[in-house]
Amino acid sequence: MISFTCDYNEGAHPAILDALARTNFIQEPGYGADAFTESAKARIRKAVGCPEAEVFLLTGGTQTNSTVIATMLRDYQGVVAVETGHIAVHEAGAVEYTGHKVLTLPAHEGKMQADELSAYLARFYADGSYEHMVLPGLVYLSFPTEYGTLYSKAELTAIREVCDHYQLPLFVDGARLGYGLMSPECDLTLEELARRCDVFTIGGTKVGALCGEAVVFPSGKAPEHFFTMVKQHGALLAKGRLLGVQFDTLFTDGLYFRIARNAIGLAMQLKELFVSKGYELFLDSPTNQQFIVLTEAAAKALEGEVAYEVWETLPDGRAVTRFATSWATTPEQLATLAALLP
Amino acid sequence: MISFTCDYNEGAHPAILDALARTNFIQEPGYGADAFTESAKARIRKAVGCPEAEVFLLTGGTQTNSTVIATMLRDYQGVVAVETGHIAVHEAGAVEYTGHKVLTLPAHEGKMQADELSAYLARFYADGSYEHMVLPGLVYLSFPTEYGTLYSKAELTAIREVCDHYQLPLFVDGARLGYGLMSPECDLTLEELARRCDVFTIGGTKVGALCGEAVVFPSGKAPEHFFTMVKQHGALLAKGRLLGVQFDTLFTDGLYFRIARNAIGLAMQLKELFVSKGYELFLDSPTNQQFIVLTEAAAKALEGEVAYEVWETLPDGRAVTRFATSWATTPEQLATLAALLP
Amino acid sequence: MISFTCDYNEGAHPAILDALARTNFIQEPGYGADAFTESAKARIRKAVGCPEAEVFLLTGGTQTNSTVIATMLRDYQGVVAVETGHIAVHEAGAVEYTGHKVLTLPAHEGKMQADELSAYLARFYADGSYEHMVLPGLVYLSFPTEYGTLYSKAELTAIREVCDHYQLPLFVDGARLGYGLMSPECDLTLEELARRCDVFTIGGTKVGALCGEAVVFPSGKAPEHFFTMVKQHGALLAKGRLLGVQFDTLFTDGLYFRIARNAIGLAMQLKELFVSKGYELFLDSPTNQQFIVLTEAAAKALEGEVAYEVWETLPDGRAVTRFATSWATTPEQLATLAALLP
Amino acid sequence: MISFTCDYNEGAHPAILDALARTNFIQEPGYGADAFTESAKARIRKAVGCPEAEVFLLTGGTQTNSTVIATMLRDYQGVVAVETGHIAVHEAGAVEYTGHKVLTLPAHEGKMQADELSAYLARFYADGSYEHMVLPGLVYLSFPTEYGTLYSKAELTAIREVCDHYQLPLFVDGARLGYGLMSPECDLTLEELARRCDVFTIGGTKVGALCGEAVVFPSGKAPEHFFTMVKQHGALLAKGRLLGVQFDTLFTDGLYFRIARNAIGLAMQLKELFVSKGYELFLDSPTNQQFIVLTEAAAKALEGEVAYEVWETLPDGRAVTRFATSWATTPEQLATLAALLP
Repeated sequence: MISFTCDYNEGAHPAILDALARTNFIQEPGYGADAFTESAKARIRKAVGCPEAEVFLLTGGTQTNSTVIATMLRDYQGVVAVETGHIAVHEAGAVEYTGHKVLTLPAHEGKMQADELSAYLARFYADGSYEHMVLPGLVYLSFPTEYGTLYSKAELTAIREVCDHYQLPLFVDGARLGYGLMSPECDLTLEELARRCDVFTIGGTKVGALCGEAVVFPSGKAPEHFFTMVKQHGALLAKGRLLGVQFDTLFTDGLYFRIARNAIGLAMQLKELFVSKGYELFLDSPTNQQFIVLTEAAAKALEGEVAYEVWETLPDGRAVTRFATSWATTPEQLATLAALLP
Repeated sequence: MISFTCDYNEGAHPAILDALARTNFIQEPGYGADAFTESAKARIRKAVGCPEAEVFLLTGGTQTNSTVIATMLRDYQGVVAVETGHIAVHEAGAVEYTGHKVLTLPAHEGKMQADELSAYLARFYADGSYEHMVLPGLVYLSFPTEYGTLYSKAELTAIREVCDHYQLPLFVDGARLGYGLMSPECDLTLEELARRCDVFTIGGTKVGALCGEAVVFPSGKAPEHFFTMVKQHGALLAKGRLLGVQFDTLFTDGLYFRIARNAIGLAMQLKELFVSKGYELFLDSPTNQQFIVLTEAAAKALEGEVAYEVWETLPDGRAVTRFATSWATTPEQLATLAALLP
Repeated sequence: MISFTCDYNEGAHPAILDALARTNFIQEPGYGADAFTESAKARIRKAVGCPEAEVFLLTGGTQTNSTVIATMLRDYQGVVAVETGHIAVHEAGAVEYTGHKVLTLPAHEGKMQADELSAYLARFYADGSYEHMVLPGLVYLSFPTEYGTLYSKAELTAIREVCDHYQLPLFVDGARLGYGLMSPECDLTLEELARRCDVFTIGGTKVGALCGEAVVFPSGKAPEHFFTMVKQHGALLAKGRLLGVQFDTLFTDGLYFRIARNAIGLAMQLKELFVSKGYELFLDSPTNQQFIVLTEAAAKALEGEVAYEVWETLPDGRAVTRFATSWATTPEQLATLAALLP
Repeated sequence: MISFTCDYNEGAHPAILDALARTNFIQEPGYGADAFTESAKARIRKAVGCPEAEVFLLTGGTQTNSTVIATMLRDYQGVVAVETGHIAVHEAGAVEYTGHKVLTLPAHEGKMQADELSAYLARFYADGSYEHMVLPGLVYLSFPTEYGTLYSKAELTAIREVCDHYQLPLFVDGARLGYGLMSPECDLTLEELARRCDVFTIGGTKVGALCGEAVVFPSGKAPEHFFTMVKQHGALLAKGRLLGVQFDTLFTDGLYFRIARNAIGLAMQLKELFVSKGYELFLDSPTNQQFIVLTEAAAKALEGEVAYEVWETLPDGRAVTRFATSWATTPEQLATLAALLP
């Protein structure tokens, strides 16, 4: 049985395990003051092209999102996201648990549109009763989105301009950032993305690490006492070295991007495989998550051999499914799928 | 330079790194539904002697404490702890951040006294205005305490009886549980401790793991939808296998206890070393944290060679210090200290 | 200048001021333990036909909503409301501030539809990942709605049945309850409404009181320690008599309903006035809030003489406006409007 | 039966009821935008001698404290108070409910000592691990304290200087402010107090109003969007006029101070009465709350005729009691007490 259900089915890239073993008995201080974390931060600052960036290493995605959002907002503010945004749906209300509302806009294949954001903000401030409402205090995007789609440079720039107009900071959730940047359809570099954000994350968990999300404030403007608030959110690891070693490894010799590219290459082959056999795409994703409308015959053929995620069953019996590749996916796994698929 | 500053200066026990490597490419589902986590839970249930126990694996100590406490309490309740309790001092207000007050009692070398708890509760309910106050809803102890001390079976039983009388659940924070249980002065077994708690934790981070705290509800009475609340607190790991593999390894063939015993053996030798050379103990700790009153001469002799933690400088120039041993401490490190110490 | 902008433009019904003056120097205990509050509660229990009801008197609407909702929910739950619900829009995120999400459904002239609620709940529990989401824990309706509309007995009963099916409690926000019950189109009695709710409020502020909302748990099942949580929410009045005297007066000899009927009678005349002069209704409201599409000529004619609320300006220059009557509106005020209206 | 149990046993000063009746049918906008509130704010700005002050009118004491404290603090901060402070004991954890810790210092007859505050802050910042702890973000004093005692000008100035040194804002809870300022032992004027605070409250509820606390930011530096946060805390009254009319009346022709002086005059007579008959004072209070050690004989003599509050029963059978006078206490009530007291 092979699984395409998600991009966190395996452990870590072997280079990470090696590094953990190699550094294991070097004594280092806790809470992110270790040398590995320092090195990782320096490498990330270089990779994002922002020498003045502040970087923090946290453990998980929901944890990172709620910590960043809660610390960027004042009590009277909420975060603006599309209605399919991860924070709006699949984080068990973690943002609300910190006291803040998620203000939702329509999603277009998972994406926010700059003109809809602009219209919402114009309408908000035009409303005479806006002081009785939650004020927008941050804009949240995911890149790639929950549907695998990407913002083009023009689209992200347009959203940035709306944010500037309303003096709203912009947060990009990059839980799958590597898979976005390595897509053939991506016209943004990491540096260009960094320059358009006030804060963004570089996901490790889904791109080769055991765990870990790097939070980057490109201009070095982290909220005051962010360290203390990370602890308050239960997000401070005693052995910060676990995160330090992993990100240090991922950002040495471009490993992060190299293994992301592997996933994208195989995802494109996987899409081509389905398309060539006549399957309908639920949407045309340029990244490692592929959304396929699977026939009942295909489902039967794959049963017990290939696992994937079912999002929805259609009235005609077909199913909207997700097949995800990752840094760990192999050509052999794809070949198995190809051989079975009717 | 060798360090006795804390018990999380190194990575993980090699058996854990081996297990991570060995299992690395086995595909498993996320969020704790993996086979390693299942196995770890079964081993823990067996070790604590509670077949009906519910076990959850979380990542860090503050995270675990605030998640357990917030989910055990109703909005109108607070948690009772001694004033030196970790949750009362060194968790950046994580408990308060979830909306709950820490109600403090005096500490006696880090310990709560059953009679003081009883008197507090009697006084509380005798106060005609108690409905204007935060109601006690949970009792929190650490075992060992922040001062390395231990509750005897009689002491823990007495506290349990007070809890029973007031129908208060009891939570034991076992961030260093192994070091407590392996102390020569400990007259409690893990099973006996489990039977006296409503919930307790088995600390992995300080006892050989890269990260991880096991939360055990011995009678199987976890709060409803605990899984969802773990996620809401940002405490759910996507690759739950990272925790599963570690606890599975630690609870195979008694590894957890064996490596804890190593730390205790060396801690007792370390204490004896200081005592034999005429140093005063700040308090007589039976576990892996030793509190020594260090002279200026000794501090000078160790400078640059041996690191430890300074808690307080006394008017006479001596310092209250903490020397911690761990699963990773070696006889060689102790010999180095012995050679340097005047 | 006369104002139809809202139903809280004046002070209190004179009978309330008289009662406050009459009882002013009678010494009574604080925090709702006074005799006036006891009497008010007894009268309310009688009016709602629930001898076992628990009744609490709070001060304001947003305060009452967030206190009731937060105390009815467990941490992992949110409250289901339509997207135009007061709690979803105009309460400055008070519900989220207590840590809970407002889960929104489409609104139909301000109303929730039982079949849409049912479909949402079915979809929710059919979603394999629902444990990663906020669980629905309470259903919130306003009666009348923010658009002045009413649920029929059949509609409310249908929603109740969906709630029963999913074991969800139902909360009806009756900030304008009197105006709803006295509408000629209302086919529900207060008793019938009470029997369909787990908790509802009887608004005083907008129906003749200086301030005050009565919270009624018809079956006597208030959350444990509700009193303490009311205090914790800053919603406990030291001089509870202020609320007690007011509700005692409002529920003596049916005053509450009599003065609500006055508002409704005048609202129907006001609607008829506009309709007879050819104005379009934005929607046909059966209660004290009337939504009129006002021409520019009419706006000009009323300028400086009659105030009302503008909700939106249409592309053709006309405005969607709200005219509210209240217990204090007089036939003379309506006559002034009629005389000015082109 | 007459009652000295507290200072909120009656309704409001008759001048307030008159003003409410007189203004009752004047139509005014809601939410504090009414003319009465504007007038009240102007009068308060004048009385406190701060033309640039920002003034807000809220409803109750706990509500006001938790709203002010939560909006003055950042997430990582707590409020420093003495352990007998109202916010630390008798507000049902309202401060913690907003996510903030109350950091407590010893109380000296209810008062904080500047040198203890200074020592705490010095120790805090000297602790190498302070970033793992809740940072002090505000200092809270009550004036008078919960024990009726007062800070002298020198004491308050000393605390102010400590606050300045650590750049900590100072909040004075003036729930009984009038009774403090009118004490013969008070050497502070209202203007002098205002100049030493960043924010303070002027209590109405206990000094002649039905309800209401004025929040004053003397330098005009209220937290941004304080209005929205007042609403978010459920503390915004729809009919703000209720608070406006009351404070407008209290601050016209010095009524607030005049009626406070009445309470103080009678409190001094009451104290003298007990002292002259040989009763022990639990402490020597200079304000309207008097703490008397009452003999069993006296308790018996007063039974059923005079009510007071019992704080504690001593081993010898005597009771520590509180007798409170108020704006409403009459010489006749005192005479009754005198006649009965053995």
